[in-house]
Amino acid sequence: MTGLLEEWRRTHYTKNINVNLVNKEIIVMGWVHEIRDLGGIIFVLIRDRDGLIQVTAPSKEIEAELLSQIRKLKKESVVAIKGTIQESSRAPNGVEIIPNTIKVLNEASQPLPMDPTDKVRAEIDTRLDSRFIDLRRANVNSIFKIKSKMLHSTRTFFEENGFLEVNTPKLVASATEGGTELFPITYFEREAFLGQSPQLYKQIMMSGGFDKVYEIAQIFRAEEHDTLRHLNEAISIDMEASFIDDIDAMDTLEKLVNKVIVDVTVDCKDSLKTLDKELLLCECPFERLDYDDAIDMINSKGVEIEWGEDLSRAAEKALGGMMEGYYFLTGWPTEIKPFYVMPNKKHPEKSHAFDLMYKDIEISSGAMRIHQHEMLVEKITEKGLNPDSFDSYLKAFDYGMPPHSGWGLGADRFTMSLTGVNNIRETVLFPRDRRRLTP
Amino acid sequence: MTGLLEEWRRTHYTKNINVNLVNKEIIVMGWVHEIRDLGGIIFVLIRDRDGLIQVTAPSKEIEAELLSQIRKLKKESVVAIKGTIQESSRAPNGVEIIPNTIKVLNEASQPLPMDPTDKVRAEIDTRLDSRFIDLRRANVNSIFKIKSKMLHSTRTFFEENGFLEVNTPKLVASATEGGTELFPITYFEREAFLGQSPQLYKQIMMSGGFDKVYEIAQIFRAEEHDTLRHLNEAISIDMEASFIDDIDAMDTLEKLVNKVIVDVTVDCKDSLKTLDKELLLCECPFERLDYDDAIDMINSKGVEIEWGEDLSRAAEKALGGMMEGYYFLTGWPTEIKPFYVMPNKKHPEKSHAFDLMYKDIEISSGAMRIHQHEMLVEKITEKGLNPDSFDSYLKAFDYGMPPHSGWGLGADRFTMSLTGVNNIRETVLFPRDRRRLTP
Repeated sequence: MTGLLEEWRRTHYTKNINVNLVNKEIIVMGWVHEIRDLGGIIFVLIRDRDGLIQVTAPSKEIEAELLSQIRKLKKESVVAIKGTIQESSRAPNGVEIIPNTIKVLNEASQPLPMDPTDKVRAEIDTRLDSRFIDLRRANVNSIFKIKSKMLHSTRTFFEENGFLEVNTPKLVASATEGGTELFPITYFEREAFLGQSPQLYKQIMMSGGFDKVYEIAQIFRAEEHDTLRHLNEAISIDMEASFIDDIDAMDTLEKLVNKVIVDVTVDCKDSLKTLDKELLLCECPFERLDYDDAIDMINSKGVEIEWGEDLSRAAEKALGGMMEGYYFLTGWPTEIKPFYVMPNKKHPEKSHAFDLMYKDIEISSGAMRIHQHEMLVEKITEKGLNPDSFDSYLKAFDYGMPPHSGWGLGADRFTMSLTGVNNIRETVLFPRDRRRLTP
Repeated sequence: MTGLLEEWRRTHYTKNINVNLVNKEIIVMGWVHEIRDLGGIIFVLIRDRDGLIQVTAPSKEIEAELLSQIRKLKKESVVAIKGTIQESSRAPNGVEIIPNTIKVLNEASQPLPMDPTDKVRAEIDTRLDSRFIDLRRANVNSIFKIKSKMLHSTRTFFEENGFLEVNTPKLVASATEGGTELFPITYFEREAFLGQSPQLYKQIMMSGGFDKVYEIAQIFRAEEHDTLRHLNEAISIDMEASFIDDIDAMDTLEKLVNKVIVDVTVDCKDSLKTLDKELLLCECPFERLDYDDAIDMINSKGVEIEWGEDLSRAAEKALGGMMEGYYFLTGWPTEIKPFYVMPNKKHPEKSHAFDLMYKDIEISSGAMRIHQHEMLVEKITEKGLNPDSFDSYLKAFDYGMPPHSGWGLGADRFTMSLTGVNNIRETVLFPRDRRRLTP
C-alpha cells in the first residue's frame, strides 16, 4: 500500500549528505533557499530542518526540460529533488547534488511577507506575525531545538531519579494563591479559572503517597505586565517530593540545571554555535546567598531596598551585576512569600523559601512547605484569604500529609539562560501577552 | 547545612528491603497502613509508594516508652521508623523491622473520610471527593504508574525518531475546527477560547520547517457528554510530520503503541499484576479496516448505519465485538471529517483519514492533511466556516507548506486500553466533567 506521496520519500537529510555518498542517488526534500542563475550553470540551495545542500545544474549536462523547471523555481517553494551526489570544492559542505528529477510539492507565493534568511533584522512583532517564516531562520529555530532538548533532558532527569509524571487540572474552581491574577472562564453554568500553578495539586499528590512527582505544563497568569520576562501563558517545570526539605530541593534543582547544560552542550552543538553561545557548568553546590546579605549588597550599589521588600527590577539588576551565572537566594521573609511556605522555626519572620536566579532573572521558586493543617489555616487567614475556599486542599493535610518540598522552574526563562536571548518572546513559539493572541 | 528534617532521611523504600539487609539499621518513611496489637507483640504495617513492610514490636524486647508510642499510632499517620532488619517467616516479604526510634511526622485525624485499603468498594464520586486517600490504594495508583510510564515511553519514542517537542498555545483567538465546543475565556478586554486541539498550530510548524514535531498537553472541550469515555479536560498526544502520508503516519502510530506495550510490560510488572492485566503486542501492520467494510460488518450485526454516517455508540460496540485489540479504521467519508483532511484523489467522497480503535473505543484520529491553500479555503467554506477567521493559519499555506500528516492520540483513553479500566475518570487524577470542578 502506498499513500498520496507515491514512491517519493526523503532518503537523506542535508546534514547526513557527505563524501561517502558520492555517485549515489538520493532524494532530498525541503525549501528553495536561494537560486543563483549564472547562465551556463544554476545553483540552487535547498534547506531542510538542519541545514543546506547545493544543487548544481550545469546547463550543458542537464536536460532542457529539467533546466527550464529549475529556472522557474521560486524562493521558499517546497521541492523534492532526486539526484546524484558529486564531490565539489565550490559547494559549502564539499558535496553537491546533480539533479535528475525535481518535483515541486508546493509553490510559494511571491513576494514573501518577510525575508526568511538571517540577513535582515526584523522587529519582533513583524516576526511573530509571520512566525512560520521566522522559524525557518537558523538563529530562530536553534532556540527551539535547545528548548526541546532541555525539556527532554529534564524529564529524563526526573525519571532517572524516581519521579512520577503527573497531569493536574488546568480548569480550577478557585484561586491557587489567592491572587487576582486569574483568567476567568465560563464552565457550563459556572465560573471557573485557569490554573496559575499546579502548586496545590502537586501538594495533594504528596498526601496521595506519590512521594516524588513532576509535571511540565502550561500555567496562565492574567498579569498586566509588559516586560521582556513575563508572558500570560508559560510552561512551568514543577516538582514536589515528600520527606525532603528545602536544602534537598535545592540540591535536586542544581543537579538538574547541570545535567541540562551537559545534554544541551553535547546534543545541540550546531544550535549553540549558531547562537554563538557557550554553556558553562556551575560548581555544586551553587552559591547560596541569604536574603539579608542580598539586601546589603543591593543597598551598597545605591539601589534602595528595605528588609522585607520583594526585589524590584532595579534591585535584581544590581544583584545580577554582582553575581555570576546561577545562584540561590535563600532565607526569604515569610511575609512576601505564599501562605504554603514553611517559616523558620527559630526566626519565623524568615522562611524556608528559595529562588534560583540566573544573573538578574528569577528562574525558579521553591520552598519547604507547611504540612501541618493548623499552621496552614493560620497562614491562609493571615494573608486575608478564606480557608473555606481551600477546603479540598486543606482536607489533604488532615489525614496523613508528609513533610514535603518542591519548586517550579520557568521553562521559558530557563531557555533564556540557555540560549542567551533577552526577550522571553524569543523562547516561545506563539507567545501570549496582553496585546497578542495570534497567530 | 541541614534543613528542617534534620538528620532524618529515608534510607530505603520498602520494595528495596530484603534479606541482604538483615542486621542492618535502616530508616523507612511512610504511612501507618495497619496495626495489630496482640498484647505480647504488636505488628505495624508501614506503606510507601511501592509497597508495605512489617514493623514488629515484641513487648518484652522493646523499651516501654517506644512501645507506648507504637500503641498510640493512628492509621494513616505519617511516620519515620529507624530500626534493624530481621529475617521473619511470618512477615509478608520474609523480613521485618525491629524498631528502635519512631518519629510521628504528621498525625492523621480519625475517622478517615474513606477506607484507604482495597477492601471496600466505594463509588467513584466518593473516591474522587477524597482522591488523596483513594490514590493511596495500590489498584488506583497502579493506573497512574502505568500512565506515567506510557507518557515517558511515548516521548522517548518520539525523541529516538527525530521528533522535536513543541509547546503550542492553549489560549487562542478563534475556534480550531469551527465547532461550538469551546470554553470562552475573558482575556483582558477581549474574548478568547481554550484550545480544543493543537491541530492548526502543529500544521503551522510544518510550514516553519520543523519537519517532525510532537506535543503532549491539555486539550479542552466544552462537550456536554456524560459518558465513560469523555472528559472536558484531557491530555492529547499529538504528532505531525512533513513529507509523509497517512500510511506513514499509521506506521508511526502502531510502532509507538507496541513500544509502549513493551516498556509498560517490562517496567510496570507490579502495577499490571495489581490490576490483573496482561498486555499483548499487536502484530504490525495492525489490521486496517476500510470504513465501507466496517459499515457492512456493523449492519450484519443488526445495528443500522448508513454509508456517510459517523459511528454511533451502538455501531462502535458492534464493531468492537468483532475486532480484537488495536485496529485502524481507514477510508473515512470526507464529509464527516474536519476540513483539513485530504480527500482521496480518485474518490473524493472518501478521505485519507484514519482512526485507531481499541476494541470499541476510538483512541486516536489522524490523516494526511490538505497542504494546498486553495483546496483548504474551499473546504473551510464548504463546512460553512469563514476563511477570514482562519487567516493566520491559511497564511502558512501560501509560502511553502510541505505535504504532511499526523495524528492525535488520547492519552487518557490510551491508558484505559493499557490498564483495562472502563471509566476514563479512573485514568485521570482530578477529572473534569460537566458536574465536577473539584478537587
